[in-house]
Formats: sequence, structure tokens, C-alpha cells
Amino acid sequence: MNDPTAHAHHHRTMSKFLKLAHKFNSFYLNGLQKKECRAFIVDGIQVGLVQATVTIELSRYPNVFIVNPNSVTLNPAFRDYDERSANIESVLKEMKEKKLFVTLKGWRDECYEVRTMFADQPLLKMDRSATCLFGICNYGVDINGYVNHPQKGLCIWLQQRSLTKQTWPGKWDNMVAGGLSVGNSVIHTAHKEGEEEASLTADLMKNLQSAGTVSFFYESERGLFPDTEFVFDLELPPDFVPRNQDNEVEKFELVTASETVNRILSPDFKTTSCPVIIDFLIRHGIINPENEPRFPELVELLHVPLQSLYKKCDNLLTENGLSKAE
Amino acid sequence: MNDPTAHAHHHRTMSKFLKLAHKFNSFYLNGLQKKECRAFIVDGIQVGLVQATVTIELSRYPNVFIVNPNSVTLNPAFRDYDERSANIESVLKEMKEKKLFVTLKGWRDECYEVRTMFADQPLLKMDRSATCLFGICNYGVDINGYVNHPQKGLCIWLQQRSLTKQTWPGKWDNMVAGGLSVGNSVIHTAHKEGEEEASLTADLMKNLQSAGTVSFFYESERGLFPDTEFVFDLELPPDFVPRNQDNEVEKFELVTASETVNRILSPDFKTTSCPVIIDFLIRHGIINPENEPRFPELVELLHVPLQSLYKKCDNLLTENGLSKAE
Repeated sequence: MNDPTAHAHHHRTMSKFLKLAHKFNSFYLNGLQKKECRAFIVDGIQVGLVQATVTIELSRYPNVFIVNPNSVTLNPAFRDYDERSANIESVLKEMKEKKLFVTLKGWRDECYEVRTMFADQPLLKMDRSATCLFGICNYGVDINGYVNHPQKGLCIWLQQRSLTKQTWPGKWDNMVAGGLSVGNSVIHTAHKEGEEEASLTADLMKNLQSAGTVSFFYESERGLFPDTEFVFDLELPPDFVPRNQDNEVEKFELVTASETVNRILSPDFKTTSCPVIIDFLIRHGIINPENEPRFPELVELLHVPLQSLYKKCDNLLTENGLSKAE
Repeated sequence: MNDPTAHAHHHRTMSKFLKLAHKFNSFYLNGLQKKECRAFIVDGIQVGLVQATVTIELSRYPNVFIVNPNSVTLNPAFRDYDERSANIESVLKEMKEKKLFVTLKGWRDECYEVRTMFADQPLLKMDRSATCLFGICNYGVDINGYVNHPQKGLCIWLQQRSLTKQTWPGKWDNMVAGGLSVGNSVIHTAHKEGEEEASLTADLMKNLQSAGTVSFFYESERGLFPDTEFVFDLELPPDFVPRNQDNEVEKFELVTASETVNRILSPDFKTTSCPVIIDFLIRHGIINPENEPRFPELVELLHVPLQSLYKKCDNLLTENGLSKAE
């Protein structure tokens, strides 16, 4: 019998887009399987994952975190959103002072909600620079600004991030993107970011069209990033040029669909912004089953099941002495 | 402390679309967890799942199937595609004669390829009526025919299936859909089905646009259906009316987007055709984060990870005495 391993992989040549999907799903496809992280439990529910390096530091705060072999539990004595948020914040600020984690250098004074699923009530809030230490699901909004150009066909507006940005400085990125911070709805965030980042007027934004979500789970030296982006398409007139208002953008460029493909495959593109562009190129027929033999796999890797990732850990609750009926 | 179970589910009111997503993912969300099915192994690779009722019948053919506690293995003595296909076919035809399984009444004389991932080389072929007995991944093609109507806005062509069809007779369905049978590419299937089912001319089909895939895992009394559909959108002129050529359609109807929502929520719609319509309504902004609080979850349930579902069963190979290096 021939080597079945060779057989199994023989016809699965890694396409360029699949390679990229493995890059922005680095934790989903590798880290998650290793089971080296502990479940982060709040109010009897898993809301994240904690790496060993982070667990060591959290174990120095036994009044705030209860560390068990498979889990880190926020002290159940904290009964509500405000109490949980305040206790976590004080620990994080101390860690920031001690310069323990590179991500905390980028403290934003802007909070993300912490919950298991998007439709759940938030259990606490946390500075956005810290959520990757706990593997908290992040939500953001992206606008694909595009032009149906009379000569060049489908063209897409890309931005180069400011060279002084804390994360991914100088990298190419989507035209408009922003995190969903506490108190802002999806549609409000889209309008706010569209105005700040690209001077999209209310009149232009009338064409804004919701087009779905992408979900992926990235790991970097900063931490764990389970990320869901709400995707919007916006057709723009050929004579419109985006102007940045918040100094977070180096420049904008209108590029053809095929040049967009080159950009996302280059290391000069922000890895975690590729899913939104690939999804756009798929929905507009640029990447299709004729030119991408691993098309169904690629589509699935743009929509990994983050909303159900943290639901299956009921067994951890017993370990914590927190039965569900308690 | 309040009941944390109640807390966890309090804000997850099941939306109408989520309910539907649970229906067409009945096996993914329930059956898969129960682990009552055995892995179906061909050439050392899992390609499907076999229910207990099917296993009992397969165990009567020990020269063809080796039944173990957690797996059913096709005899490794069958060395190639043709030998495997012929041996399985002779068993299935005998089962059909014996009227053991309702699905085999619908014998099609049309085969589907059997493989783990879409990009893999097929290991054998099997009549499409039988694949649900082995939980083989099915692939199909769907065309969303739509009209941007000057008065009514976005409208969608739906078909009512023939009252004499073997499966889902009389139910409402997508305008055009067809399975990917042996020897036909995705795009060829789209063109063939478009012509046969709705008389879409080559001229109209110039606007055909690839728009992605949907993946879901349905279970019915007939068996297991892990299904991936290649989705195409086709904008049609307001005066075009589809005409059926193969007697598989009762009638066509052009309905508004909001009426389409009513149709898919009604029991008169073919359950397994809903994912394609929901995906269309999401990509066109009709279902969006403003009107669907569980939007990210809904999108994920349209793209469940079927391409990686059968890859994680290497431990079964040892049980079969087929180590990977053998």
C-alpha cells in the first residue's frame, strides 16, 4: 500500500489564498488544537482563553482570578458588570505600569464589551489593548469602498496606515475599519469611522450596504484575536477621493481588482484585514471556483465558528466548583 | 447567585432565521455531538459517517465493509476508483432490491464523487440517492435569479417544485439548483441547470456572477446530508420569465424581497434550499445587523466547517489496523 499520508495531501496544494487564510487563522488551525490555553470563565460562562504566560501573571492576583489546571475564573464575588470591569481594570493598569505585556503599551482608553456570543448581554468591559490577553471575541466594522470604473472595471480603495500607528504601522489596509467599542452600535460605528477615516458624507453613505460578516482567529506576539468583522460595501462615484481626518492614514489609493489581489498577497498588507478583502473579491466573482480549486475551504476559513467556540466547556465549571445550578 | 443557565440563554432569544439555521443544520448542531455514527473510511481516510441502522446492513457484506466499534472501512483490497465504485454499487443495488432504505427508491443513475475535501482526488463514485447513507459531502450549484424592479425594488425568482418529484414535491425552491455529478465542473453545471430548469440563454448567462458558497449539515429520515452549494447571482431583465424544460418545475414566481422572507420561513419551502436564499438576503443587505441581533451566528451557520469535519479522525486508523505509515 502506498503512503496514505502522501495520498491525502497530494491534491491539496496550498493555494495562495489558502496560505493567507492559514495565516490569519493561525490560532484556529494550530493553537486551538494544542489545548495549551486555559478557559477564561466569568459568571460561570467561558468568554475567552488565557495563554500560560498570562496565567502566571494573573495568578499573582488571587483576590481577582482563581487559577485552576484548565481555567482562569474571575472571582464570582464580583456580582455585576461595573464591579467586574473595575477589578479587571485595576489589575491591567498595574500590569501596564510593570510593562509586562507589549500589547498594554497600546492602552487605548477605549473599551470592548466581554461576552460569549454577540447577542449576549455583556458581562464586563475591558480596554481594547487587553482583550488579546484573555482571548476575548472582538467585533469590528469594515467598509469596502469600490468604484465600477468605466475603463479599469472594478476598483477598490485601499488605505496605507499611518507610519506612527501603534499596530501595523505603514501597512496597507481596507479603506475604512474600526472596532465596536462600548456604547456604539454596528451601524453607528460604520458611519463614525467612515466620516473620521475617509470623509464619507451622509450623502455618499446612503449607498452603504450590509454584506455579511467574516470571522477568523489570529494569534500574534501580542496575544489571541478571535475576530468578527461586520462587512459593508459602498459604491463610490469615480471622482470621489477619500480624505483622512484623524491622522491615522498615510494615504489612500484606488487600485484595480487584480492589483488588490497582489496587495493582499504581499507582506505589506495588514494580515488581519485580508479576510474582508477576500470576502469582497469572492462576493464579486473575482475569486471563484474556476480560479481557486480550494474555494469551499477558503469560504469556510472566512467564517470559522467563533460564536460557538466557547460554549462547549461546561465540564470546566465543575472543576471550578461552580456547577451551573449553583 | 441567580441561575447562570438562565442568564446565559436569556439574551439569546431564537430569531426566526436562527431557528431555520438550526433546522437545516440539524445534524451539525445535534447529531454530530451525540457521536452515535461510525466514521466511514476509504483508503485510510475518513470520507463520511454511517448511522447504526445502516451499519447493521453493511455488516452483512464482510467482503466489502469491515465494521469496527467506531468505524466502517471499505475493504482496502479494493485498490482503485473503479474497483471501489463497482463493489459499493453492487451492495447498494442489492439493498435497493430489498427495499431496505427509503432513499434508494430514488435511485438516480447519476453519481456523485466521494472524497474528504473538494480539492481532493475522488476515491470512488456513488449513486446520489445513496450518499446520505454514508454521510458523504455533497456539492451543488444554485443560481439566484433576481430583478431590480423599478417599482417593487429587489425581487427574486422562486420555483415551485414539480408535484411528482421524488424529493420535496410541491415545495418552493430557488430558481435554479442542481447537484455536481461525476464529470461536470461547477460552471458547466450552472450553465446546464440554468438552461434545463429555467431556459436561461447564453446571452442572459453572461451576467452570471460567482458569489461564494454555503455549507450546512442536515439530517432527515433519508439520512445525513453534509452539503456545500456554489452560489451564483444572476440579474435578469424585468421582462424575462423563466420557462422550465425538464418537467421538474410546477411554476415560477417573481416575489419581492420581503415576500421571499415569508416564503423561506414557511413550511412550504424546501428546508435545504433556505441557506442559499438567506445568504443572498444577507449579501444584499435585506437581513442585516440592525434587524437580526444574532447576525454573526447566522452567518457562521451558513458556513459550517464541512471541509475540515472529517480530517480529525486519525485515531480511528489505528483501530482499523491501518496506521498512516502502513
